[in-house]
Amino acid sequence: MYTSRAYSAASATAPLAGTTIKRREPTPQDVQIEILYCGICHSDLHTVRDEWNAIMPTVYPCVPGHEIVGRVTRVGSAVTKFKPGDLAGVGCLVDSDRTCPNCKEGLEQFCPGMVLTYNFPDSHLGGVTYGGYSDSIVVDENFVLRIPANLDLAGAAPLLCAGITTYSPLRHWGISSGKKVGVVGLGGLGHMGVKFAHALGARVVVFTTSLSKKDDALRLGADEVVLSRDAAEMQAHAGSFDFILDTVSANHDINAYIQLLRRDGNITLVGAPDQPLPVSAFGLLFARRSVSGSLIGGIAETQEMLDFCGRHNITADVEVIPIQKINEAYERMLKSDVKYRFSIDMASLKAE
Amino acid sequence: MYTSRAYSAASATAPLAGTTIKRREPTPQDVQIEILYCGICHSDLHTVRDEWNAIMPTVYPCVPGHEIVGRVTRVGSAVTKFKPGDLAGVGCLVDSDRTCPNCKEGLEQFCPGMVLTYNFPDSHLGGVTYGGYSDSIVVDENFVLRIPANLDLAGAAPLLCAGITTYSPLRHWGISSGKKVGVVGLGGLGHMGVKFAHALGARVVVFTTSLSKKDDALRLGADEVVLSRDAAEMQAHAGSFDFILDTVSANHDINAYIQLLRRDGNITLVGAPDQPLPVSAFGLLFARRSVSGSLIGGIAETQEMLDFCGRHNITADVEVIPIQKINEAYERMLKSDVKYRFSIDMASLKAE
Repeated sequence: MYTSRAYSAASATAPLAGTTIKRREPTPQDVQIEILYCGICHSDLHTVRDEWNAIMPTVYPCVPGHEIVGRVTRVGSAVTKFKPGDLAGVGCLVDSDRTCPNCKEGLEQFCPGMVLTYNFPDSHLGGVTYGGYSDSIVVDENFVLRIPANLDLAGAAPLLCAGITTYSPLRHWGISSGKKVGVVGLGGLGHMGVKFAHALGARVVVFTTSLSKKDDALRLGADEVVLSRDAAEMQAHAGSFDFILDTVSANHDINAYIQLLRRDGNITLVGAPDQPLPVSAFGLLFARRSVSGSLIGGIAETQEMLDFCGRHNITADVEVIPIQKINEAYERMLKSDVKYRFSIDMASLKAE
Repeated sequence: MYTSRAYSAASATAPLAGTTIKRREPTPQDVQIEILYCGICHSDLHTVRDEWNAIMPTVYPCVPGHEIVGRVTRVGSAVTKFKPGDLAGVGCLVDSDRTCPNCKEGLEQFCPGMVLTYNFPDSHLGGVTYGGYSDSIVVDENFVLRIPANLDLAGAAPLLCAGITTYSPLRHWGISSGKKVGVVGLGGLGHMGVKFAHALGARVVVFTTSLSKKDDALRLGADEVVLSRDAAEMQAHAGSFDFILDTVSANHDINAYIQLLRRDGNITLVGAPDQPLPVSAFGLLFARRSVSGSLIGGIAETQEMLDFCGRHNITADVEVIPIQKINEAYERMLKSDVKYRFSIDMASLKAE
């Protein structure tokens, strides 16, 4: 074991603060990474504040962060894919059982034995896994991603969660040139959805509750922006969408979007509202439409997404902050006061 | 024009009663059919009582019935597929625009210019179309189905709506040998779903609120019956279904079924509850599951279904009634007091 600096929360109500944590020495299969940037995901805040207690109670101290990019500092003797000095990324998963049907199909995110990057039982050191709000992490090479060298690293970090979360459903539902894609919500997830749908060749329409976001949506790659409160504007798009990516975590009227889908069209939820969403059967029946959900993506698809980003020079739009501003960033995130993702410059941790 | 005997409702509150209606003389493309049996669908009752006023107000007098089998009595000069004496069927559709993308793909049920068999504007005679509670009907040959000669005709009638409504989603979602299929609700639709899923080679589980239906479910082709109120029994099936056919029109907890689906599993609604169904996003996200709807089927698929029924000797379980018992049958249908579909013997109409 060795010691890493980190930021952790001591309880559901405590602010995050500097600390030290133990990391394992790399096993033969492991890659040790010096963390350069870590994106801030809303899941970090939910976990720190124990808001998902019913599903996965938070164990304290809690070190969140699963949008990790950095540089390889050491590799185990059996590691073949990475060498010291390589850029590397780690997302939401650091292990899985590797034998179940989901793993065999490259869908480790649905593996019953998956190990999340933080707040998940750690079979190496006991306790729970510690995430990316830290200067170093050790991960099995099979769960480490290659980061294209041309990408801005601060903006690349959010690709590891916000990126794959939006890329995966677009690919699963066959989005390509000629398709019409809607994106509901223009936040950390939505702005990535717009970039990916545009890069995949689709015609992209952003739905927003505020026209103040219009110019930004167009800049990000949208072809059109629709004010979702304007019934006439919505009706003009009835039955025309192949696919809608719904990134909204607040409760909202999904039926208004279902009726915009064409026959066999799909709307996929990647946000998870607390309350069940009322779905009208008529909207589904009369055009064989479907509503589904999607959860991050597997390791192979995450690499595919990163390579796609490299080719299209796609990164998240980020506001880079020192880790000392993390608690303030959480409050601003709750007010959607960020365009569009915070990325922590981990050099700030060394200055502590 | 010529005169047919029929049963019609004069208003939303009037009982159905004997009357005469006008039918068009067959055009060169038309087939004239002597109706032998007509199934009773819940849609008939909804329309007769104007319960779908918000979507499609009922025009009176109303002659319902869209599960029609009979014998061809006359054909127009251009008709090539039918000759007098042939068995013939008519379902929910009697025409469509034939040019839209849906029609070109054989999905006339989604054509914006589709013409329903009853209570729909009749471009030939004005007024609205009259359905199968009648001794005769005239329909364009492209919307007339062939009925396999080996099928019991009274039991074949419900195939034209209840049959295709359940067959189409099973085919659309690729049900075949080795798949595990659930059927929610064991009524007119559900009992056909069980027969089809079984004949397609699936392992079939029927969900019921009452174990009194167990023996019947097994007889119809179910491999297992699960009491949906028994949480432990439900939990034993968590994550195991490829597909669930939900035939329930009453409000019900769809989330209890969503969690029974495996990764990428789908639950399709073919009933249409009045109220939106609350759907939990978590149930969809964590296994990329989907909820969708399905509406009858196109003409080509309806013929495929009938041919499948011919090969597997599948018909609906029916209680045959004379048309004079139609109002009583409606009341019994509301109490689910029928196993599993009423079929009107239209010979009774001649006796009036």
